[in-house]
Amino acid sequence: MTLIVFEGIDGCGKSTQLERAEAWLREAGHDPLVLREPGGTSLGENIRTILLDPATEACPIAELLAYQVARAQLVHEQLMPARAAGRTVLLDRFWYSTIAYQAYGLGLDAHRVRSAIDLAIDGLHADLALYLRIDPTIAEARRTAAGADRIEARGLEYLERVRDGYEALVASGDLTAIDAELGPDQVFEAVTASMRSVI
Amino acid sequence: MTLIVFEGIDGCGKSTQLERAEAWLREAGHDPLVLREPGGTSLGENIRTILLDPATEACPIAELLAYQVARAQLVHEQLMPARAAGRTVLLDRFWYSTIAYQAYGLGLDAHRVRSAIDLAIDGLHADLALYLRIDPTIAEARRTAAGADRIEARGLEYLERVRDGYEALVASGDLTAIDAELGPDQVFEAVTASMRSVI
Repeated sequence: MTLIVFEGIDGCGKSTQLERAEAWLREAGHDPLVLREPGGTSLGENIRTILLDPATEACPIAELLAYQVARAQLVHEQLMPARAAGRTVLLDRFWYSTIAYQAYGLGLDAHRVRSAIDLAIDGLHADLALYLRIDPTIAEARRTAAGADRIEARGLEYLERVRDGYEALVASGDLTAIDAELGPDQVFEAVTASMRSVI
Repeated sequence: MTLIVFEGIDGCGKSTQLERAEAWLREAGHDPLVLREPGGTSLGENIRTILLDPATEACPIAELLAYQVARAQLVHEQLMPARAAGRTVLLDRFWYSTIAYQAYGLGLDAHRVRSAIDLAIDGLHADLALYLRIDPTIAEARRTAAGADRIEARGLEYLERVRDGYEALVASGDLTAIDAELGPDQVFEAVTASMRSVI
């Protein structure tokens, strides 16, 4: 399996780039599996519905653990079999989001966050993890305020802390940053250049 | 807060004894808060619905983590405030169930199970944890097979391993065992005798 992860704050163009990456892989004769977090399994989609519902009240630790439920099931039900079958997987968010949103965004203890992630991922690592870097103010402007889900509704200061988390993961070599403030074609050129190194 | 936990495999008479304990406390002038796991909060009840649905496919780690989501929210939203207010809480299942059902019943690594529990309970401990001891074959006979939920449907051998887990917690001093194969009045006498030591 080649596991390629797309990361970034909502509004960074992640979904568009992921769709184009899928089409690009298909044209090259691959049969990629496309998955998203939280979700990608029946259990994970149920958890996703609960987490993104504006009516849900979840304390930070419950929220942290809920993401790991969806992740553990995704790893067990989708990623491990894909690895065994040698398939290429495009994944919309993985554990990097937990570091950015829960540890940096919500200020949860980094050790507890890592401990929860470790329970869920079972030693599985990505071959390439792309961070579509965009300024939180631009991301905010790209999104419609009306449709904000529970996580997005936390505002700009929260997103700035999330951005700091992503930048820490770039600095540690876990994420490869791509300038996502450029036009979609230029961003996609950078995405494919990175993908060529692992495909 | 005085936290009193009732544990045991389904069919042990836990619900009956818990109701009687609540009435007994009210007669004595207490105002107990009665809660159950998984559940006790809006988020926890949503998780409960997912976990007990026979259609849910959850790998053992996802199931382990899902129980901790409900527990973390219960600790944050109900138990910590009850402790601050000095209330007596009667709780139907707590972390002991996770040791019995997930570590012993499903055979999950004990270290991972403890690690998940530690994330959820945030150092909170019970003042009294009663184990209503009953032979799994008797518990099976007391229940109607038709109404078995996803966990109960795992059968007798599973329940025997769960029982072994409870017995290990009795041996380590975490649980106080009560013979629940006697009539409900005799069981309740033993329950109140234990409760008097902490109320």
